[in-house]
This record gives sequence, structure tokens and C-alpha cells, in this order.
Amino acid sequence: MMQILDGKATSLAIEAELTEAVQARLDQGLKRPHLAAVLVGDNPASRAYVGHKVKACARVGFVSTLVEQPTSITQSELLSAVRELNDNPDIDGFIVQLPLPDHIDDQEVLEAVLPTKDVDGFHPVNAGKMSLDLPCFLPATPKGIISLLDRAGIDTQGKHAVILGRSSIVGTPMALLLRRNGAPGNCTVTICHSRTQNLAEHTRRADILVAAIGRAHFVTEDMVKDGAVVIDVGINRIPDASKKSGSRLTGDVDFDNVAPKCSWITPVPGGVGPMTIASLMQNTLQACSNKDA
Amino acid sequence: MMQILDGKATSLAIEAELTEAVQARLDQGLKRPHLAAVLVGDNPASRAYVGHKVKACARVGFVSTLVEQPTSITQSELLSAVRELNDNPDIDGFIVQLPLPDHIDDQEVLEAVLPTKDVDGFHPVNAGKMSLDLPCFLPATPKGIISLLDRAGIDTQGKHAVILGRSSIVGTPMALLLRRNGAPGNCTVTICHSRTQNLAEHTRRADILVAAIGRAHFVTEDMVKDGAVVIDVGINRIPDASKKSGSRLTGDVDFDNVAPKCSWITPVPGGVGPMTIASLMQNTLQACSNKDA
Repeated sequence: MMQILDGKATSLAIEAELTEAVQARLDQGLKRPHLAAVLVGDNPASRAYVGHKVKACARVGFVSTLVEQPTSITQSELLSAVRELNDNPDIDGFIVQLPLPDHIDDQEVLEAVLPTKDVDGFHPVNAGKMSLDLPCFLPATPKGIISLLDRAGIDTQGKHAVILGRSSIVGTPMALLLRRNGAPGNCTVTICHSRTQNLAEHTRRADILVAAIGRAHFVTEDMVKDGAVVIDVGINRIPDASKKSGSRLTGDVDFDNVAPKCSWITPVPGGVGPMTIASLMQNTLQACSNKDA
Repeated sequence: MMQILDGKATSLAIEAELTEAVQARLDQGLKRPHLAAVLVGDNPASRAYVGHKVKACARVGFVSTLVEQPTSITQSELLSAVRELNDNPDIDGFIVQLPLPDHIDDQEVLEAVLPTKDVDGFHPVNAGKMSLDLPCFLPATPKGIISLLDRAGIDTQGKHAVILGRSSIVGTPMALLLRRNGAPGNCTVTICHSRTQNLAEHTRRADILVAAIGRAHFVTEDMVKDGAVVIDVGINRIPDASKKSGSRLTGDVDFDNVAPKCSWITPVPGGVGPMTIASLMQNTLQACSNKDA
């Protein structure tokens, strides 16, 4: 019997917990968590993502600051903006929304973020601690998927997880987290990517299949084992004449045909997306609490 | 036709290159690379490992310094010793030999090592850069295995690599390096461990099998596909009445029975072990050259 892994509902449950935690902080005379976001240029998708994060802050009672910078910003100006946020004691955590303009060295910018304020978990120190199974800020999308599995009570112990995609933001951290000696965790993990041969043979063995390749409806029913848990990380825009905008969002999984074979499956939208934002909020609260100690 | 992946011969070739590189540095008026090793207590295995590293330095023309500390050293004394090496401009790189005594917080010590001198690649910054596919010091054993595959001309592109073991020193970095978009690399990678179910099914699918579990002769012939490349990271001491010491070193692979099925296989000793030391020497040269710039 297929069940929907409802990221929207789960994210609302997490938001309710965060709202309570903020109130508990205020009752103890502690500050509200404060998240800042640096937005460079006017990429509409980036603006929309940052907007979702700002709105989530408002919902859970965090303060948020949006730092907008023109596309023409220089590397050193952007580094200065990052350092200002590092030095601002009221900012608990911040993100630099990607992608950055072509003339910017992304990596230098991400490494300029103070690891203790790096709530996106993109600094090498946080990536390293993740791979060493040490406490750190986990990147929001993989963290959200782990929470979703955990809160749905899905048993991962000894299961075979197959990850489609090896990116540093989703595929690789998912592999690292699912291989961990913990719960969720203890999966046998296979990482597949564009160079994988006989891909369907690998995906058909998956008890847990994570699709993070960015190709609409790439995962078809013949690639999925009966009873699998399918996590769809894709956010692809495809034409849809029935929509006013002429397009709609869809995942990496051919949901209509794959869903009937699954024990659990995330929809798009309403699956991994809301969990990503909820995880960023959790990281921000953690950054704030870490400073209390 | 089975071929031996000869780590001993390959390490000698690397040492010859390093010796030449040192001579080239001296000809340019540059300093000899200088590796230091911190040895705490009198664990005979640790002493032997450090001894091998000191001898390797001598062979390739590096300066080496052995910093011996008593088992009774305190955490803060050990951190001071690390800071002294960080601050010593003549030391290009150094290692803290593990394991450390039980009363020492290993992680705090490893994180105290300046990342630019962390030639073991154990600092979170280096582990993180490895997982992000950025330039860094790679941990010596995985780096050695990659070199061995590379220098033997073994094609890894699109191959299925199965790693037995998920440690932060061998299994996990091997998975990260073999998944990389590069050469060697571009493997589909499966990470197996103590919680893996139906282990032999996984290992039998491996084009490249890396055994890093620390159990003598754990990998038997029924677990290996015909024509596989088998890399044995195990160093296990087992009883052997024919030896004066009463014991001998052996790997995680039942070599005698597995080897006939392989296209390539590493022996123990003489496989991964010498490559680990050669890689540490390469990292030390790199640390030294980085300082020239």
C-alpha cells in the first residue's frame, strides 16, 4: 500500500516545534534567532527561494535580514559583505544564495563564511565534519530527507539505498548520511551518476531510491523495485498548457507511474522542498543556541 | 590472467621521483622537505609505523623529526606540542600517530593541526575539501590506492567499485575518491559495512573490490567476481608456527584462493602498505612546495 511522504505536513510540524522553541527562548530572556540571506543580482528563481526562506523565518518567529547586492558587485565587495555578517553579533547564521554571477569565485565566498554561522553547511569545515560523523551544520536538503525518513518511522537499518547524483549539495551528503552508524542510517549505499553503466540494474535493487539528477521524469517504473521508498529531489520546470504560467514544477521521478509500486514516495512539489527550508530553520536555531553556551 | 598490483615496486618508483624532486629543489636553492611525527607512549605497532615513515624520509632526502611524548602527557601539553610544530617554519608537515592514549581527546588534537601542515589529511578542512572535490591533502591510504590503480593503468571509468568498510580513514574516503568525476574515478560506488545484508551479493558485483574491515581472510573466493580488481587494505596479525615470531601479517582477503579469479590483486604485505607511506611522502613534498609560492 503506497503512502505519500508528505514533506509539507512534516515541515509544518517542524515549524510548530521551532515556534515553540522560540517562545521558550523568549520566556528565558534569550534573543530570537536571526537568519540573514545574501542575494546577489536578480535571478528570479534565486529571489523566489530567498523569499521562501524569509517567509519561513516570519512564520516561526525568527528575525530575518535580506542583504541585496547588485550583479556588478566585485569579489572583494562580496567578501566584505560576508565579513560584516560574520562580525555582526546579532546575526546567528546566514546563507549566500547560489548561483553567484560568473565573475565571482563561489568557493572563496563560501569559505569566507564563519563555520559557526554557516547554516547551509557548505563550508569545508562543516562538509568535513559531516564526512567524519562529527556534530556540524548539515546541508539543508539531505538533512530534510533524513528528517522525513525519521519522522515517517521508515526503517533504514541494513537497507540498500541507491543515490542518483553525486553533487556536493545533495547526492554525496545523502550517501554519507545514510551510510552512518545511526538511525536513520546504517544503509548499504550505492552512488550512481552520469557515468554509471546499466543504471536501471542498480536502481532496481534499491530499498530506498534518492533521485537528485535534475532531469524531469527520469526515473520510470521499470527502474524501481516493488515496495521501494522513493525520494524525489528534482525540481524541474516543464511546459504545461493548462497552467496560466504555461509551465509547472515536476520531479526527477515519473510519479504517476512509479508511485503505485512504492511503499513511500515524496511528491513534487510538497516533498523534499518544504523539508529543505524547515531544515535551514532548524540549523539557524541551532546556530543561535550554540551561542548561548 | 591474474596480475599482482605491486605496491612495493610502485612505491619505489614514487620514491625515486621524490628523490629527484628533492634534488631539483636543492639545485634551485630551496630547502629540503621536513616531516615531523608526534609519537605518544610506547605502543610497539605505532613505534614501528613511525619508524617506517622516518626511514622513508631518509631514503628520499627529506629531513624528519620524531617528537616523542610519554603516555602520561596531558591534553594541554599535547596541544602545545602540536602548536609548536604549527609555528615552526622549518616543519613543512607533520602527523600525530594514532591511536592516542584513552585520556586524550583525539579529535581536538587532530583539529589543532594547521590544515596546511596536515599531511595525514585528517583535519575536517581537508576531509571537507576532499568530499567537495577541492585540492587538499588526501589521507595517505586512499591516496596510495588511487595511485596504484592509476599507475597500473587500470580503467575505472563506469566500473562498479564496492568498498568494504566505512571508516573515516579508508572506506569513506575511498568511496568519495572513486565516485569523483576524474581519472581514476567515475566509478559507481557501493559502501558496505557491518550492517550490510547479503554482503556476498554486493561483493560479487564488484569490478573493483576494496577490503578495509580488519578481519583476516574475510573475503573468500565465493565473494569475488571473475576478473575483479581486488585491493586488500587489511593488516592483520595471525598465528604462524613457521615464523620465529610465531605470527605473520595477512590481509582481509583469502589471497591464495581469491587471487586466481582476479585480474589484479594487491598482496599483503607489499600492496597497499608501502603505497600509504609513499603517499605521505608525496603530501609532505606538496606541503613544502605550497610554501614556496
